[in-house]
Amino acid sequence: MMKKISVLGSTGSIGTQTLDVVSKHPEHFQIEGLAAGTNVDLLLEQIHQYHPKKVSVASKQLADQIKEKIPSGVELFHGNEGLIEIAANTDAEMVITAVMGSVGLHSTLAAIEAGKQIGLANKETLVTAGHIVTSLAEKRGVKLLPVDSEHSAIFQCLNGENRRDLASITLTASGGSFRNRSREELTHVTVEDALKHPNWSMGAKITIDSATMVNKGLEVIEARWLFDLPYEQINVLLHPESIIHSFVEFKDTSIIAQLGNPDMRVPIQYAMTYPERWPSPSKSLSLAEIGKLHFHEMDYERFPCLRLAFECGKIGGTATTAFNAANEVAVSRFLRKEISFLQIEDIIQRVLGMHDNISYPELGSIEECDRLTRERAAKL
Amino acid sequence: MMKKISVLGSTGSIGTQTLDVVSKHPEHFQIEGLAAGTNVDLLLEQIHQYHPKKVSVASKQLADQIKEKIPSGVELFHGNEGLIEIAANTDAEMVITAVMGSVGLHSTLAAIEAGKQIGLANKETLVTAGHIVTSLAEKRGVKLLPVDSEHSAIFQCLNGENRRDLASITLTASGGSFRNRSREELTHVTVEDALKHPNWSMGAKITIDSATMVNKGLEVIEARWLFDLPYEQINVLLHPESIIHSFVEFKDTSIIAQLGNPDMRVPIQYAMTYPERWPSPSKSLSLAEIGKLHFHEMDYERFPCLRLAFECGKIGGTATTAFNAANEVAVSRFLRKEISFLQIEDIIQRVLGMHDNISYPELGSIEECDRLTRERAAKL
Repeated sequence: MMKKISVLGSTGSIGTQTLDVVSKHPEHFQIEGLAAGTNVDLLLEQIHQYHPKKVSVASKQLADQIKEKIPSGVELFHGNEGLIEIAANTDAEMVITAVMGSVGLHSTLAAIEAGKQIGLANKETLVTAGHIVTSLAEKRGVKLLPVDSEHSAIFQCLNGENRRDLASITLTASGGSFRNRSREELTHVTVEDALKHPNWSMGAKITIDSATMVNKGLEVIEARWLFDLPYEQINVLLHPESIIHSFVEFKDTSIIAQLGNPDMRVPIQYAMTYPERWPSPSKSLSLAEIGKLHFHEMDYERFPCLRLAFECGKIGGTATTAFNAANEVAVSRFLRKEISFLQIEDIIQRVLGMHDNISYPELGSIEECDRLTRERAAKL
Repeated sequence: MMKKISVLGSTGSIGTQTLDVVSKHPEHFQIEGLAAGTNVDLLLEQIHQYHPKKVSVASKQLADQIKEKIPSGVELFHGNEGLIEIAANTDAEMVITAVMGSVGLHSTLAAIEAGKQIGLANKETLVTAGHIVTSLAEKRGVKLLPVDSEHSAIFQCLNGENRRDLASITLTASGGSFRNRSREELTHVTVEDALKHPNWSMGAKITIDSATMVNKGLEVIEARWLFDLPYEQINVLLHPESIIHSFVEFKDTSIIAQLGNPDMRVPIQYAMTYPERWPSPSKSLSLAEIGKLHFHEMDYERFPCLRLAFECGKIGGTATTAFNAANEVAVSRFLRKEISFLQIEDIIQRVLGMHDNISYPELGSIEECDRLTRERAAKL
């Protein structure tokens, strides 16, 4: 079997790990398209290694900068149109959507519209437009295969089971870089402190989102759409080692869990090979070597952003778009050292206080909410 | 749906828990037959509660003792013929084989021959005659549904997965009553000490088998037949809490595990409702409440019987019959206080030293090996 793949966000953390998986199975995967942002040097390397037919970069300026350097026969695009070209207009059967932030939504919708299977690594797609994306995927007969380790775990645990026998799902959370610090101790933490995630090697934004537990909140909202579950059936459990990636409980009290060393290449590869499982470059888990696994109740006082995520999820409509947009701006400002760590929460909370919710929004309303929320979050 | 069930060994630990499951779903289960051993008082209670059409006891003498007390219309049998009657000659679709020891083999074969689905709780069936039982089950289109918590866990973890993607299975072992004692400290332990199993409420023989790790050895051999795996793909891991009941690893390094509170009614019920899952009387597992799970490499020096079980399994033929028969006699002798705890191992090892192996034995050779081994083990 030879599977044709396009990767949106090929130079990011998930993108590079996706290509690493491709490298391990060169006889089974062929890269059709790569869309990068601004890291053109890495994109050029990827072009030479994986021979895509189409590539795209963030802007015309960047495209001009590399157009002499790419092999003949490789088509070069840029901007949002370029991203959509890579998403929808290649021979790829599957598109890995690993661009960060809400720019992933349009390209994911274009890929679904074109009937591509989706390896979903862009959280914002379901967080901001879950109702639109899932109904389009159903209409087009497209599978949304989760790439996130938690959702992949849930997806794997549901294999061969009857959905009506499901009692609940539980996403595990490591607690992030500051899991052993009290709220008081968080007042003066730095960007550098926050970027040290204990278990996973990830991008900067998602590492901050882990420390604030916003990441888990976005995952809860994603899970609601991916698995079509009410929020009452979605739990979060603190599990510092990130070895149990998530689990499901059935009505007979049986729990099925997925475990492994923290290595994103395993869920990425599973999305790419589903329903098969192929040998992985990851290291086998030895529970005896690890010795102990720990679990604690989630503390919603310590991590108020997770509580906010559940609240926005239950409200529905544009509330989750506002939650996500406010967080994106606040995290950027923290990374630029404009605000302190705890102000991330504060900004999200205050912006949500100004939010006027729209139920079942169209794409236009989602975009307007996104824009307005960002404007507000930038000023607070 | 109404499922008709017969229970072989209805007054034992698995038998009574099977009937407890039946009691929770009276609209879905109907008891056709009950076979007990010598506990006629409990059998009489069960007859009045579950209204079987046929019942059996161990001997003619016991049958005579209760024949006046059973309701009219209930047919009474006894002995091995009685056991086979309950196994094969009722309207039951499923037979739970929960008799202890090698007497379970003939009745299980009779039930399979009669096309009944098997809820397999008698370990010796597969340990002594795995090749005969599995090939007959295949021929008759009968499913062997594991009732043991470890095998049920593996069975559940394989749901919806492709067997060729399996890398290995791992049975967890609590370590039994003496898991924190060294071999030196085992010299003078008593029967009463040995019967205190830390996690599971089980019969006396299986509790001793847990302390010697013979039980895990029998489970390894069972797993070889139930899941058609070479011994090289079967691992054992010490896990004192018995919360992860067992797990499987796939070729992509993903591990799927089944977890729950230690309560045999969950795997018993799963065998009875498979592929569905129904609400269970068991308590939901809270990992946060438990807080920690521990894992250690199996110590084959500390538990030499497990090493012997693997060795016998790899030899195949009648070696596993000899292992099982030697253990049954040794455990009886320990329970009668004729020998010390460590002599159980000693007897097994010495009897195996005298064993002449027969490959692919017929039932007759298995029985002859069983008889001869018991004779030897009784005299050492």
